[in-house]
Amino acid sequence: MRITTTDTARLLAEHDNLVILPHQNPDGDALGSAFALLYALQALGKRARVECPDELPARYGFLFREYRPLEFHADYILSVDMAALQMLGPLRQRYEGRIDLCIDHHPSNDLYAKATLLDDGAASTTQIIHEVLTQMGAHIDRAIANCIFTGLTTDTGCFLYDNVSALTHRVAAAMIDAGAEHGKINKLMFDTKSRGRLEIDRIMMDSLEFYFDDRCAVVYIPSEVLPRLGVTDEELDGVSSFPRKIEGVLAGITIREQGDGTYRISMRTSGGVDASRICKKLGGGGHHAAAGCTQSGELETVKAAILQAVAEELEGQGL
Amino acid sequence: MRITTTDTARLLAEHDNLVILPHQNPDGDALGSAFALLYALQALGKRARVECPDELPARYGFLFREYRPLEFHADYILSVDMAALQMLGPLRQRYEGRIDLCIDHHPSNDLYAKATLLDDGAASTTQIIHEVLTQMGAHIDRAIANCIFTGLTTDTGCFLYDNVSALTHRVAAAMIDAGAEHGKINKLMFDTKSRGRLEIDRIMMDSLEFYFDDRCAVVYIPSEVLPRLGVTDEELDGVSSFPRKIEGVLAGITIREQGDGTYRISMRTSGGVDASRICKKLGGGGHHAAAGCTQSGELETVKAAILQAVAEELEGQGL
Repeated sequence: MRITTTDTARLLAEHDNLVILPHQNPDGDALGSAFALLYALQALGKRARVECPDELPARYGFLFREYRPLEFHADYILSVDMAALQMLGPLRQRYEGRIDLCIDHHPSNDLYAKATLLDDGAASTTQIIHEVLTQMGAHIDRAIANCIFTGLTTDTGCFLYDNVSALTHRVAAAMIDAGAEHGKINKLMFDTKSRGRLEIDRIMMDSLEFYFDDRCAVVYIPSEVLPRLGVTDEELDGVSSFPRKIEGVLAGITIREQGDGTYRISMRTSGGVDASRICKKLGGGGHHAAAGCTQSGELETVKAAILQAVAEELEGQGL
Repeated sequence: MRITTTDTARLLAEHDNLVILPHQNPDGDALGSAFALLYALQALGKRARVECPDELPARYGFLFREYRPLEFHADYILSVDMAALQMLGPLRQRYEGRIDLCIDHHPSNDLYAKATLLDDGAASTTQIIHEVLTQMGAHIDRAIANCIFTGLTTDTGCFLYDNVSALTHRVAAAMIDAGAEHGKINKLMFDTKSRGRLEIDRIMMDSLEFYFDDRCAVVYIPSEVLPRLGVTDEELDGVSSFPRKIEGVLAGITIREQGDGTYRISMRTSGGVDASRICKKLGGGGHHAAAGCTQSGELETVKAAILQAVAEELEGQGL
């Protein structure tokens, strides 16, 4: 069932013992959403904890530096920024069928929760959460402002992508007024590259292949390079946009060997090419311009399957 | 003489035949400022023209596609985003001593105009011009909104740098509401790289040198590579931030051989290192975190002079 912001604010106000679930491999929006809610609910006198399917990533440590999970019996389970149950990873078994409320902005959300606040026009889930907290009359302190700002900036590539609206900038302004350390956060997220990460750029350049009259670009990152260069998984956040940025490319594909026989495929598109539709054919999903999937098998077979799906999309769109 | 926004609005309202001067090698803020003013003044029934010291750069063509300069006798000369007279280049001789009004945000502005509206806390000159136009009661149409937005986004690295304030985001929101094509503009300015431009990244990586315990990084771009790769000067807008983005680097220096025996040096800094002070020692200037200068001589001599100035700054700051 889809519900409104007002319903959501009421439901949150009615419950006092809440668990908040971000998705697996949580990004800035998932963690920003989870901790913005946590801090706001705690300030309202409620008991709440964040349960992350994986270890909390150090890259986003500034959002939860002081966090110690509370032990209590939960009576309300919330998921944030999570389009489908499989994104719960190891926590799926525990929470399947028990999620009371989901707050999300992914158009592919399959409404797995009992109630879902879904706004696929929002640039980030934190943008929606800002509205919910405003409706609840919650005070936005610096910690919450940092969380909301982090979701806004990371899910928009620093206010770059088409998903940015006037409201996105207005919420960013309000968060800066509330004390968000926007300069620091942006520098950390977008403006710092380790030397190892710089080498990854070179590896991507060297592996670059073009298809379909240069409208599709593919790069490949073998799993061995990460430990060799001392690059963490989290540092690779921005790599997916690398091939799509090349002039004339409508579909940019980044293939990352996972080291367990599988490949994580990230797709970024422009010019009307639907990344979500392409990735759905391969068992994945996401947004119109940013989607992904996981494949196993031989690299050449995997690549051929993706290119086939891209060809179908280009043809279907008359491109 | 420094004047207020209200004074500026009044002075503009009082004159009917205006020339607007952006600086040499104009960037998005200089051109956005010049054309925002042009369109607004024309809509108010005035005669105005933009006189650019160089040819208008094609990269920003979307700001002035329909522009045809008018011939008329000017009675008021305005400069925008221009810190010093030498930035007038070939137009200096013509306008020296005749500039009635300057609107700028560079802290190094030396008040060469008869009246100067200077706000060095503004992220861009267009952010100041938005205030002036608001005070004048000018209608902000899509063309003006595109100009103001372009200045905001290009001078902040797409809302990334420390110079962004809550007001910057609020003006961006207002411009989107007024019809600014923010997605298109950002994609064009920040999210598209030609293959030649990608090769420049590789050339910078290959030339990378570190100094002073890796707190200073230097890259070098020889002049021959631009024609060889078919890369235009305008495409190099973002290269200057390349070395500063490397983890731990406080001073990032990009040296570009100009092909006429001179080198253009761009410096980007963080962590309190004053790029403007360093570049002033070498006859240049700019902002605290972004400055530049031009040097001639042997590359190694030029490099040594810059590194000496960096060493003095690091030492002076106790870094």
